[in-house]
Amino acid sequence: MLIEVLPSAGSPWMPSLNYKIAVVVDVFRATSTMVTALANGCQAIIPVLTTEEALERRKTEKGALLAGERKALPIEGFDLGNSPFEYTPEVVGGKKIIMTTTNGTRAIQAVANAQHVWMASFLNTESIAQAIFKYLESNQNIDGIVIICAGTEDRFDVPDTLCAGMLINRLGNAAELNDLGLAASMLYNMSKENILKTLQETEQGRYLHSLGFDRDVTFCSQTNILPIVPILRDGEIVWDTNGDIKDY
Amino acid sequence: MLIEVLPSAGSPWMPSLNYKIAVVVDVFRATSTMVTALANGCQAIIPVLTTEEALERRKTEKGALLAGERKALPIEGFDLGNSPFEYTPEVVGGKKIIMTTTNGTRAIQAVANAQHVWMASFLNTESIAQAIFKYLESNQNIDGIVIICAGTEDRFDVPDTLCAGMLINRLGNAAELNDLGLAASMLYNMSKENILKTLQETEQGRYLHSLGFDRDVTFCSQTNILPIVPILRDGEIVWDTNGDIKDY
Repeated sequence: MLIEVLPSAGSPWMPSLNYKIAVVVDVFRATSTMVTALANGCQAIIPVLTTEEALERRKTEKGALLAGERKALPIEGFDLGNSPFEYTPEVVGGKKIIMTTTNGTRAIQAVANAQHVWMASFLNTESIAQAIFKYLESNQNIDGIVIICAGTEDRFDVPDTLCAGMLINRLGNAAELNDLGLAASMLYNMSKENILKTLQETEQGRYLHSLGFDRDVTFCSQTNILPIVPILRDGEIVWDTNGDIKDY
Repeated sequence: MLIEVLPSAGSPWMPSLNYKIAVVVDVFRATSTMVTALANGCQAIIPVLTTEEALERRKTEKGALLAGERKALPIEGFDLGNSPFEYTPEVVGGKKIIMTTTNGTRAIQAVANAQHVWMASFLNTESIAQAIFKYLESNQNIDGIVIICAGTEDRFDVPDTLCAGMLINRLGNAAELNDLGLAASMLYNMSKENILKTLQETEQGRYLHSLGFDRDVTFCSQTNILPIVPILRDGEIVWDTNGDIKDY
C-alpha cells in the first residue's frame, strides 16, 4: 500500500484521492483541538475557510459556537480560540462548533473529496492507526493513504511531519512511501524520545511560546491519550461511535 | 543569520530574496551535472525552461550544445541528456550549454532575482560553504541564505533536502532555521554515514535505477569532490575563478 505525505495545505501537488483514506494533521493546533473537543462531548465541528463563512453558517446552526484563530490568536467576536484548553466539557458538551483556522481547515478542504477524511494529532495517532487497520481488514476498495500535513501558511512544518511519521511507523514497514513519507518516518524515529523538545524548537513552537501558549505546546505533544477518530461526514467532523465503527 | 529551505521549485511560499544568497540544489541531477560540466571545462550553462526556448536560444548561441531531460530521459534531437557522465572534457570543453530540466532550471528561475544565485550538489557542498564564509567576511549586505531544493515535479524530495542539510550543518549552529531547514539538518545527521543508501531508497533513486542510471546515483552521492562554485551571472551559470573569487 502506498502512503503519501503532503507538506502543507497549499501543496502545489495533489495525488489522486480516489480509493484513498485522507488523514489531516494539524498538531498546532486544529486537529489536536478537534480531538479534544470531541472527547469532551462536542457534537460536531463544522470546518469553514473564512470568518465570513463562519458567521454566515451560524445563522442556520442555532446554538453553535464560533471558533478559530488567525495568526494563532482568537478571532474578535468568536466564542472560542484554538487552544484545546478552551474546549472543556462545560463549554462544548452537546454543542456544534463552527471552526475556521489558518491551516487546518484549509487542509481539510483540500482533501474533502477523498473517500474518507480523518483527523489525526499526537493525541490520537494510535486510534487512527487502529481505525485504518480495522477498515482495511473488511474493505478491499482502499489502495492508499494520503496524509496531508496542514503546515504553516503553505510551508512545511516539523510538528505535522513528525506526527505523520509516527502514524507511518505504526502502520508498519510494508508500505511504499513517497519521499516526504520517508523523511517523516526518519524524523519521527530520530525524535520519538524527545517529541516535546523537538516541537519547542520549531517555528510554531517558538511562536506559540512567544504568545504564552506553552501549555498548549506541551498538551499537543502528548501521544495517544484520546481514543478518538474524528471523521468528516456530510461536511461535519464527528465521532459517532455507533455509526462509524460499523463503517470501519 | 536566517537560513530558509524551500521544498521544491513550485513552492507556493517564497521568502523575500532581497539581501539573500540563494543556493539551488538539484542532486538528481541538474546541479550535479552543472558542477561536473564546469569542472570539465564547459564555458557556461544557460538555463531555460522549455525545449522551445532552448531551440530558440541556440539560434543566437553559435556552437552551443542543447542539453536536458524530461522524465529523466534525454530530449529528442538534443545533444546531451542530464547524466553527468555525458559531460566529458572532450564533449563540453570550451562550449556553452543550453539546458532545460524538469525541476532544476525551474528552481533557478524561481530565485533568479536574488542578489546571488549559486548551485550546490553533494559534489561541491564544501566549496559553496567556503564561498559563503568568504563572502560574508567581506560583505555586510547579506542577511540570509535561501536554499531552494528543486524537488521532483513540485514535490519535496529527500536527495535535495539531505544536501541542504549537509550545507546547513557545515555553516554551523549559529543560524536560525525555518522548519524545513531544521528537518534537513536532522535528516542529514541521521544519514551522513549512508548517503548513497539513503538516496537509493528515494523515489528519484528508485526511478533512476529503473532506467539503468545506477552509476549516476552513485556519482551524485559523492561529497566534496569538485571545488566548483557555479554562479548565475547575466542569465548564464559560470565558474569564473578570476572574476568571481574577487566577488566573494
